[in-house]
Amino acid sequence: MKTVVIFSGGLDSTTLLYSLKADNHEIYSLSIDYGQRHSIELQYAENTVRRLGIPHRMINLKSVAQLFHDSCLTNQSLGVPEGHYEEEKMRLTVVPNRNMILLSIAASWAISLKADTISYAAHSGDHAIYPDCRPEFTDAMDRAIQLADWHSVKLFRPFIDLAKSDIVKMGSKLSVPFDQTWSCYKGNDLHCGCCGTCIERREAFYLAGITDPTEYAELAPDLTVLIKNKWKI
Amino acid sequence: MKTVVIFSGGLDSTTLLYSLKADNHEIYSLSIDYGQRHSIELQYAENTVRRLGIPHRMINLKSVAQLFHDSCLTNQSLGVPEGHYEEEKMRLTVVPNRNMILLSIAASWAISLKADTISYAAHSGDHAIYPDCRPEFTDAMDRAIQLADWHSVKLFRPFIDLAKSDIVKMGSKLSVPFDQTWSCYKGNDLHCGCCGTCIERREAFYLAGITDPTEYAELAPDLTVLIKNKWKI
Repeated sequence: MKTVVIFSGGLDSTTLLYSLKADNHEIYSLSIDYGQRHSIELQYAENTVRRLGIPHRMINLKSVAQLFHDSCLTNQSLGVPEGHYEEEKMRLTVVPNRNMILLSIAASWAISLKADTISYAAHSGDHAIYPDCRPEFTDAMDRAIQLADWHSVKLFRPFIDLAKSDIVKMGSKLSVPFDQTWSCYKGNDLHCGCCGTCIERREAFYLAGITDPTEYAELAPDLTVLIKNKWKI
Repeated sequence: MKTVVIFSGGLDSTTLLYSLKADNHEIYSLSIDYGQRHSIELQYAENTVRRLGIPHRMINLKSVAQLFHDSCLTNQSLGVPEGHYEEEKMRLTVVPNRNMILLSIAASWAISLKADTISYAAHSGDHAIYPDCRPEFTDAMDRAIQLADWHSVKLFRPFIDLAKSDIVKMGSKLSVPFDQTWSCYKGNDLHCGCCGTCIERREAFYLAGITDPTEYAELAPDLTVLIKNKWKI
């Protein structure tokens, strides 16, 4: 199968890349610079595709960031909220319609390459706050992408029913070098350990029962307290 | 109604802009520089919104053009085919998945603005060669856009059942200054008169029975012969 992978350099999409490679797919990797504060993830993406020898394109979409000012991921004057994704304040991290933009550009390349699919790593934990990670949204996009050209491309979402901890388990079996993946929204030299995506990352390793090799700047708040509150343990 | 209009500076989207203005919509205009050979259309777009006092954003998507090499609209080494749109060679003018990319960026802005709709000027003549102008594609995109955020935006396609000649008739009633709109794919100082979109433009005025104010570089091939062949007159 020939596939275009939307590849952020994060834990989920890196595991997806390794899993597709293990299954001998013909992979083309696509990363998007949309002016994200944590553009360090793109460096991680480039290092990974270079290491694996996968064709890669980086698209500059910084100009699009002028259209929205309410997301802390693109507006540097807003702070990145700390805490668990389930909290209301995490909505600040939503970039309006980001996934449709990424998918539409991936579809453009996939059509040009006459690829069979676009692969992306949306998982079941994403859609709590991100409306464009919901299965009904991705189903609608799948249909639109199949109709976008005479050459029909399908959307491949192998992680859509998995929790992030399942992805960690899978990545571990595939020997994904997790310390070579990036999650933190703050985008400093080290993962902060406190923002929504750091908490989610720490939680995933904890629930998977796998040692987290990530070096965090700090480990407050205490993860076990957060998890107990969330799961009512 | 608050609406984001995808505005190329061409005849169709300029008529759409005038029609929305006549109906007192709150309009936000969006133009995209995707590295098109005929970037002169973007100058026409800017002049029109300045004249009408409409808020306008121009998005730079030139980086996306690296993903496709088979379209003569973005690959300067390919020639622009001359003749009627219905001919096979016109497929060279297809930019893969262009409309999904435009719509996804418009949706991003519309969500940020809490707009009601995205307006765009796809018409019944478009879908003969452009798969992403077909009603089934735009229906699928309408659904995806509505699901992309908690704030739901609809797709408004008032021209979807109109021929281009109907748009010319409507524009004429609205006093659209057609000579301030741009169609030609070649993007020289004057409309060439011979490429697919020039032929379509000339044909639309002819069929509408309205004088075409456009200055063309040349008027070969003879329009009446082409039209007779097409309509078997």
